[in-house]
Amino acid sequence: MSAVPASSPPYWLRDNCPCADCRDPRNGQKLFQITDLPEELSVSASTELNGRLEVLWNDGHRSSYPLDLLTTEEHARTGDRRTEADKRLWQAADFTADQAPEQLPEARWADYLGDPAERAAVLRAVQRLGFAVLREVPTADRQVLAVAASFGYVRATNYGELFDVRVEPDPNNLAFTSAAIAPHTDNPYRDPVPTLQLLHCLANDAVGGDSGLVDGFRAAALLREQAPEDFAVLTRTLVPFAFRDRDTELRADRPLIEVDPLGRIREVRMNNRSIGRLVLPTAELTAFYAAYRRFAALTQRPELQLSFRLGPGDCLIFDNTRLLHARTAFEQDGRRHLQGCYADLDSLASTLAVLERRATALDELAALFAGEGAAEYLGEAVTQAEHMLQAAALAERAGAPDHLVAAALLHDVGHFHGVVTGRQLMLGEDNRHSDTGADWLARWFGPAVTEPIRLHVAAKRYLCTVEPAYRAQLSEASEYTLKVQGGPMTAERAAAFAELPGAADAVAVRRWDDQAKDPDTATPSFDHFRPLLECLLAL
Amino acid sequence: MSAVPASSPPYWLRDNCPCADCRDPRNGQKLFQITDLPEELSVSASTELNGRLEVLWNDGHRSSYPLDLLTTEEHARTGDRRTEADKRLWQAADFTADQAPEQLPEARWADYLGDPAERAAVLRAVQRLGFAVLREVPTADRQVLAVAASFGYVRATNYGELFDVRVEPDPNNLAFTSAAIAPHTDNPYRDPVPTLQLLHCLANDAVGGDSGLVDGFRAAALLREQAPEDFAVLTRTLVPFAFRDRDTELRADRPLIEVDPLGRIREVRMNNRSIGRLVLPTAELTAFYAAYRRFAALTQRPELQLSFRLGPGDCLIFDNTRLLHARTAFEQDGRRHLQGCYADLDSLASTLAVLERRATALDELAALFAGEGAAEYLGEAVTQAEHMLQAAALAERAGAPDHLVAAALLHDVGHFHGVVTGRQLMLGEDNRHSDTGADWLARWFGPAVTEPIRLHVAAKRYLCTVEPAYRAQLSEASEYTLKVQGGPMTAERAAAFAELPGAADAVAVRRWDDQAKDPDTATPSFDHFRPLLECLLAL
Repeated sequence: MSAVPASSPPYWLRDNCPCADCRDPRNGQKLFQITDLPEELSVSASTELNGRLEVLWNDGHRSSYPLDLLTTEEHARTGDRRTEADKRLWQAADFTADQAPEQLPEARWADYLGDPAERAAVLRAVQRLGFAVLREVPTADRQVLAVAASFGYVRATNYGELFDVRVEPDPNNLAFTSAAIAPHTDNPYRDPVPTLQLLHCLANDAVGGDSGLVDGFRAAALLREQAPEDFAVLTRTLVPFAFRDRDTELRADRPLIEVDPLGRIREVRMNNRSIGRLVLPTAELTAFYAAYRRFAALTQRPELQLSFRLGPGDCLIFDNTRLLHARTAFEQDGRRHLQGCYADLDSLASTLAVLERRATALDELAALFAGEGAAEYLGEAVTQAEHMLQAAALAERAGAPDHLVAAALLHDVGHFHGVVTGRQLMLGEDNRHSDTGADWLARWFGPAVTEPIRLHVAAKRYLCTVEPAYRAQLSEASEYTLKVQGGPMTAERAAAFAELPGAADAVAVRRWDDQAKDPDTATPSFDHFRPLLECLLAL
Repeated sequence: MSAVPASSPPYWLRDNCPCADCRDPRNGQKLFQITDLPEELSVSASTELNGRLEVLWNDGHRSSYPLDLLTTEEHARTGDRRTEADKRLWQAADFTADQAPEQLPEARWADYLGDPAERAAVLRAVQRLGFAVLREVPTADRQVLAVAASFGYVRATNYGELFDVRVEPDPNNLAFTSAAIAPHTDNPYRDPVPTLQLLHCLANDAVGGDSGLVDGFRAAALLREQAPEDFAVLTRTLVPFAFRDRDTELRADRPLIEVDPLGRIREVRMNNRSIGRLVLPTAELTAFYAAYRRFAALTQRPELQLSFRLGPGDCLIFDNTRLLHARTAFEQDGRRHLQGCYADLDSLASTLAVLERRATALDELAALFAGEGAAEYLGEAVTQAEHMLQAAALAERAGAPDHLVAAALLHDVGHFHGVVTGRQLMLGEDNRHSDTGADWLARWFGPAVTEPIRLHVAAKRYLCTVEPAYRAQLSEASEYTLKVQGGPMTAERAAAFAELPGAADAVAVRRWDDQAKDPDTATPSFDHFRPLLECLLAL
């Protein structure tokens, strides 16, 4: 009987084969074409073994799937998060009311730069709420480009790589006057539209000139609720957006509200200034204008508009496919100067995903130190966690390079991650924890970190051979495990070990390892080493 | 009775009011919000007058529409040209068969740079066929960025501002190996996807490594023809495209075939390498894989694939939302080195539209010289066209700046464009052709060109006052029209004229004007002056 669930069509299952012939292990890219698969693909045999589904195919290929690859949960977590389904829709009171459920998403520039968690929080806010504000960004010319580069790539347009928003003598765009501007999205005449906008305030002592943000997804959702037929009209009517000056003639025919094939709101364009002449049958024109006027009125409802004032050093980042931005009129005698640029959501999401995967890795390590590591003694006077933290502290005090501090910190994680645990080692069965640990860590760290760990047990056996005094100072437990691990090396093996490229690093780690068993010394916390690990992560 | 056609709903008509209060004359951007219009907008009175529809609105506003604004023809011409409706779909034989209807769209880099018509032809090919090849592009490092900058903006990605396509020791992408690559689009895991790709060949003496292009719109149209239900499945199934390496984690959920709200194909994504795991009900998975396999097989049909070899100096530009590109395997011992970058279709279309509007203006002028201008003598021994060409040649020979050569060339166009023509001038009615001509040309040229034209009749009256010898050498016809135009200036008016900022330029144009009536001199063609006019166009 086949172990393949009936819910797994053969081509789907085979297309997801994770073997190294089918997928590049470095980036998960597939190495075959869907057309390479045989016409009548089928499963010849399958079985479940050790939490994996093993499949033999009728073309002879073998696949081995972790069972969780056949479930649906991961999908929800890793969608592209671009539709209303993955957003928190809001109105002004969600930030401003007493006991408002949301805080204004903001962070100091220095914290954003220095703390990956803070950086992730800002980017997550842009993804979830559509905006965030960075404070205390240096009010330097072109600084807005550095903000964009911190998570993605600047998208140049006809307005330049960056644009200055201030009163201009002969403006080619309303933005460069002092007039009020109703809530709108930018560049609807571009396709692809710039999906992110940044506005960095360099000066604002004019009277007026406040900023407003409106959640366009929320406004569209309200329209769908109140007038579903109007909503439908706006999703299916192609609106000719246009912009023209001496060197530019842009045109994009796109709906005001774009939905994905599942009907979910995924993009809003709203900018009366650049809507050109629609050419449609009369009944459709009438229906469009009724729907458009209703939607425009919704976007201008005061309760939807979050108003605030950008001060010098503030940099607003917002989703130009979702949020409408507005500005009140201002007095021309004051100085008001913003610099803006465009960027894209995909790179922001990528940067966030990388930060999150790194945070997940570090959280997993932190949990090890706080959980199993803190409970386990393995015959010494300190816990495993204390032991590893002390080893890292010794390495740090010795001025060791970061990768050796990390190796010292993580050298014994194999005790918790092999099939054979540290406890079993203490009962006389070698758990080969140096290999297990190095292999487990290789998901996250490069060989500079993992190889000294792989060799740190061999280094003990080596040192016992070449330095009789070394063996004399081993702890009782270490002397016991030495025997389980094979005892001192022969002279030939020791000579061969010394020739290995990582031998010196492994010996260094070994010496910190041996000294890191002092119940009376102050032990730094795992968090102390977290930034160092963060920099070494290679995932 | 109202002159407003029943096919013009009030809000549509008012939204398209072309008056200067409603629209910024510089860029056509609207200056009001749709919500600024009254709740019960209606036409109080309307009338047709001189080819315009004059409307009085119930809120007191007045609009005046050129009647052609109420027709539908312009729309088809100026759509955004992004769907199959505005493309020429092709297969390989369309370029390669005997008497093939299409030629490979190609141009020498020097011609592309030097000749606006050639540049427009290349960009139009990318828009219409999906690709073009530039030849003899200098094989310099980073030159591909200059090609992109010639029509738009580079889109940076995780592969950099540009990427080198050659064998790499530890590639993070199949492109950087020597393996064959089946037809695919790039970066489907980006949203917005880069809509254009450029590939510039610096070296290719490897065996193999040929390039192939497939029209993905054509393949999709074939699928719709042969298996409409499969086509529908691919337009509605969200495919999770993904890419991941150390610093990147991109994800986009988009259909393989994207259609616009009218059902027209507007984007194709095809890249088996980066399709992640779909999570859907079994029946949908089965239907998707059947449709996907059929579509993939279509894109790999030999008759669809146009194959060619990029040699050093060739730069291929292609539409990454439509064309699939492929490469045969190659021997690693040869040298093969391409540099690529991404850019976007919207800026390419804008550059093309500006080139086209400039070409249209120059074509209109050229037609004037070839048509009415060549037929009209107005009392001289040369035609109007010869007269103006001679004036320009005199200006050019005198080393005049470009704007004065242009003014000399165009000084009499007012004879053809006023309500009162040059013929009527010769019958004794001043046609004020200097004003008419300057106003007509102001659509296209700045004041440096138009103002000497505006003053060139006044300059004649001025010179007759201050230089008795000048009047003596006037032609008979010119002496006749002097009277119709008001005769010599009074001394006061002449003094005032001399103070005008453009007086010296107008006098210079006037002198060339007076000398440009020689039936025996060789006259350059209008095309001789076309590049000069091109540079002066301000539209």
